[in-house]
Amino acid sequence: MLNIAVMGYGVVGSGVVEVLTNHAEKIAKKAKEEINIKYILDLREFPGNPLEARFTKSFDDIVNDDEVKIVVEVMGGLHPAYEYTKRCLEAGKSVVTSNKELVAMKGAELLALAQQKNLNYLFEASVGGGIPIIRPLSQCLAANDVIEIAGILNGTTNFILTKMIREQMSFEAALALAQQLGYAERNPAADVEGHDSCRKICILASLAYGKHVYPDQVHTEGITKLTLEDVEYAESWGGVIKLIGRVKRDEKKKLQIIVCPMFIPRESQLANVDDVFNGILVRGDSTGDVVFYGKGAGKLPTASAVVADVIDCVKHIGARKYLFWSDGSSDYVEDYMLDTVSMYVRVRIDNVDLAYHNASRVLGGITRLSRKDAPAGELAFITESMPEKDIHKKLDALKELGVEAVSMIRIGDV
Amino acid sequence: MLNIAVMGYGVVGSGVVEVLTNHAEKIAKKAKEEINIKYILDLREFPGNPLEARFTKSFDDIVNDDEVKIVVEVMGGLHPAYEYTKRCLEAGKSVVTSNKELVAMKGAELLALAQQKNLNYLFEASVGGGIPIIRPLSQCLAANDVIEIAGILNGTTNFILTKMIREQMSFEAALALAQQLGYAERNPAADVEGHDSCRKICILASLAYGKHVYPDQVHTEGITKLTLEDVEYAESWGGVIKLIGRVKRDEKKKLQIIVCPMFIPRESQLANVDDVFNGILVRGDSTGDVVFYGKGAGKLPTASAVVADVIDCVKHIGARKYLFWSDGSSDYVEDYMLDTVSMYVRVRIDNVDLAYHNASRVLGGITRLSRKDAPAGELAFITESMPEKDIHKKLDALKELGVEAVSMIRIGDV
Repeated sequence: MLNIAVMGYGVVGSGVVEVLTNHAEKIAKKAKEEINIKYILDLREFPGNPLEARFTKSFDDIVNDDEVKIVVEVMGGLHPAYEYTKRCLEAGKSVVTSNKELVAMKGAELLALAQQKNLNYLFEASVGGGIPIIRPLSQCLAANDVIEIAGILNGTTNFILTKMIREQMSFEAALALAQQLGYAERNPAADVEGHDSCRKICILASLAYGKHVYPDQVHTEGITKLTLEDVEYAESWGGVIKLIGRVKRDEKKKLQIIVCPMFIPRESQLANVDDVFNGILVRGDSTGDVVFYGKGAGKLPTASAVVADVIDCVKHIGARKYLFWSDGSSDYVEDYMLDTVSMYVRVRIDNVDLAYHNASRVLGGITRLSRKDAPAGELAFITESMPEKDIHKKLDALKELGVEAVSMIRIGDV
Repeated sequence: MLNIAVMGYGVVGSGVVEVLTNHAEKIAKKAKEEINIKYILDLREFPGNPLEARFTKSFDDIVNDDEVKIVVEVMGGLHPAYEYTKRCLEAGKSVVTSNKELVAMKGAELLALAQQKNLNYLFEASVGGGIPIIRPLSQCLAANDVIEIAGILNGTTNFILTKMIREQMSFEAALALAQQLGYAERNPAADVEGHDSCRKICILASLAYGKHVYPDQVHTEGITKLTLEDVEYAESWGGVIKLIGRVKRDEKKKLQIIVCPMFIPRESQLANVDDVFNGILVRGDSTGDVVFYGKGAGKLPTASAVVADVIDCVKHIGARKYLFWSDGSSDYVEDYMLDTVSMYVRVRIDNVDLAYHNASRVLGGITRLSRKDAPAGELAFITESMPEKDIHKKLDALKELGVEAVSMIRIGDV
């Protein structure tokens, strides 16, 4: 019998306990050992809970108990999760987590500590909820050079965008519905501003390229400024708007990494990822495009990913899974303004024909878009591919001519 | 340095050598050991090949060399791959393979032998080519009860169906094109008759439910009888025809497993899997639907999956990956005639109205389908769900009334 502790009895934590309890026999068979939840750390009381006696409010109970070999950290947030994880690893306990914020911020440090102690620090559940992605990326695609990763990594924003696209709901109305259905928090900033997607693409990029990239190194835009006009123009262009986290590596081995809404062509496998689902495309040099699709969040999907890591951890007590990346550096990420993109631009202007003429002259070959029932004074077009800074420079010049962009969205090539 | 041998220098074998050579440094880092190809077994000559000196025509060279720790079996076919694999395992060498025929026929026996010898027998590349599926199914989804697996498992037939659906090519013309492009063999029976898909769903089912199911236990239908009429009716129904391998387990723990063309609704994630791509849907009780998508065949995708297994094997020399299922039994698979399905039926008959009247009377509520430019004397409909044997019984009764089905296709609920 192997003793574990679960830190945090929120949505994911209670799901972990539920999965471990309901599938106990099957899991014991897979892990070749019975797994016993010795402690559950939570500051709240859970009177009547079948495991009431296992609850503790003291982290010391866990860290000082040598019988506890694996600790599941599903508290979320940076503090005290970071300190607790460190102390657990220092005390010789492997740690399994779903905490994307912590992995994205402190992954390199915690992985190094785990390595030094010959322990495991596993986080399959931190990206894509129940979708297997961390292990396939590190193991199955090990013989590939990863050319690119692009993903719809946040279910809440994808739900909102789906409602805007399919039902012509405004952003505000779709967000309100998402909150009503429990998909979005009362304070939805982490989702709609793109921070959650940013943490996840940082984890995938760190793993794929072996060096930590930190969230504050990544240019991140959310979906709060998207309008139904933009959604309609995306459709007339032949695609949909999705919030994408994307990373590539350039010839100087610097990362091109960004989180932002993108126009995605209808034929892309990511274009059909709707509602609260996530989709992650990994482009390998040998394997070509591989796409992973499923529910990116939710109690049981996330919990089942955590428990799969616990099983793996039990099977590898005393051995290490190879899951590692080194510290990052401040010059590791290329300025996104240097990335080559093509851009959707929408302007409001009295004289549309003159504006189109000027835009063509300043920007070079542009492709004009149309939409049904467009009001007078609206012009939308796609620029050619060029370094993003050049687009901005040209749009500034266009502004001098009285033509100001009210909306700009990058064109995704995935 | 760790020595391996590659048996078979065909498409996959030469790809394995290519990937191991081109990514040598990266792979050594991942495996924490340099990998050396000591032998390549092939009966042909490869003069001028950079590894010419490593080629051998004698299996004994490999099996008798104690320095060879891992053997890659990419010969394909049952014999002598089976005998060679057995002898390698008996001689203390782990084996990595892409040979779906062998795994589907002899997996339980070879896994038991590997276990007994404390070796690994790995076969990620046997299903889905470069798509990670074996490892995610056995590890990441370990905390799930697998409710169902349904997949488009054969790229050749999916290419043919895509051409029929998108470009209204006949089956024969699409097959000829597939052969011309090198997607289909000169003798395409294994693909178009569904045998290849059958082997793959057998492997997935054996792994997911822990007990071997053999190809000859699975009712298998190919795509050779599909016509453009059926393709059009599928569209008017709201979907597409795909060749699906599907397995579920019923309450008696018997398998419901089948390979056949199915009507798949347009909203299904499998409906958008086109051309030579594969898509595999795994429905878990905790994780919900997870879909894996990518190239299911091809030299480099398959080779990269083989090499990923080799890396895993090197890291686990002396330890075992948990990958196992027990022997099958003759009563393990439920008679597919007892499975509940709803069926698309097309008939040719002079008096369509009378036929519809009779079909409704005999079969109960049927849903009539229409298509543009349907000739006189054509009737197509969808039956209600019922055990398949009842559908056949009722269709026999209908035949007595002079209404004979010329086409029947099951409706998929994935």
